[in-house]
Amino acid sequence: MKGAAAAIELGESKIGSTPRSGVNRGAAILDFILRIIAFLGTLVSAIAMGTTRERLPFFTQFLQFRAEYNDLPTFTFFVVANSIVCAYLMFSLALSIFHIIRSNAKNSRIILIFFDTGMLALLTAGASAATAIVYLAHKGNAKANWFPICQQFNSFCERISGSLIGSFVAIVIFVLLILMSAAALSRR
Amino acid sequence: MKGAAAAIELGESKIGSTPRSGVNRGAAILDFILRIIAFLGTLVSAIAMGTTRERLPFFTQFLQFRAEYNDLPTFTFFVVANSIVCAYLMFSLALSIFHIIRSNAKNSRIILIFFDTGMLALLTAGASAATAIVYLAHKGNAKANWFPICQQFNSFCERISGSLIGSFVAIVIFVLLILMSAAALSRR
Repeated sequence: MKGAAAAIELGESKIGSTPRSGVNRGAAILDFILRIIAFLGTLVSAIAMGTTRERLPFFTQFLQFRAEYNDLPTFTFFVVANSIVCAYLMFSLALSIFHIIRSNAKNSRIILIFFDTGMLALLTAGASAATAIVYLAHKGNAKANWFPICQQFNSFCERISGSLIGSFVAIVIFVLLILMSAAALSRR
Repeated sequence: MKGAAAAIELGESKIGSTPRSGVNRGAAILDFILRIIAFLGTLVSAIAMGTTRERLPFFTQFLQFRAEYNDLPTFTFFVVANSIVCAYLMFSLALSIFHIIRSNAKNSRIILIFFDTGMLALLTAGASAATAIVYLAHKGNAKANWFPICQQFNSFCERISGSLIGSFVAIVIFVLLILMSAAALSRR
């Protein structure tokens, strides 16, 4: 992975005479590895959020004594968005392997950039909407009279906060993937 | 605008012999127009949200009688994200004009794709986080005991809901811009 990254940098900045298809092949291998990491990130996020539930041994006048991720529609959207992106990443691995073999492919790269961009938008929407609600669950909002539910549902809140990490890792990887695809297109 | 779009399609699908720089110039002009629309979209969104406030002629036991956008941190983030993207789009117009003149530019297109992707992620994060909160303001959440504040703050809620539109228009345009830049890179 490090070697491939170094090869790209060298190919772009210094050694202009390096065979371009070799640089593109290194980039395609890095692309493949990054996609696997993003796949795992979204998978873990979807599973961690989707299996979250907490049952309290007591209940108060205001708060229910049971919390599940689908009590809040935003978390359902988060799970759906992560699942869709996760499935897409699995299929895109096939195209990534194709680019390792045929490093001069053009149309397939444009298709990949288009879908990568769409998936980036979907994943960012899911992750940031969930983050907004998680923030509200932690801090509440005095002006709107929304109470922080994390005071009651501790482990529930820890779990939903942690499940965001995988998504944000995948978002960063998507930005890199789109940049790498654009660079590969320009080197053809 | 329509003519430019038609030129791109023709150039890609049928008339392979069309001068490629001409197609790229048409695409660059379309790019410029789309950027202006996205600029206006984010500008309107930021201003509409940033100037929202409502004062009620009465107050109840539970709810305050004054609502402003910055009562909710998510809306502040929305305004900041839209302002940053709006400023970026203004500067990117210069690069877009450069691409109309020099339609074979390579490195500047890669830089543009990178920043476009980053801005797409930022804008989507701001818009969808705000949407999650707007949804909560409209519907509330019985399980978390969050009351829908829109029952009290009608015009406030209409205004914040409407201000999301400009952002979502800009998000769709960003996806198109990235796709067009990638296509232009591949045509070089």
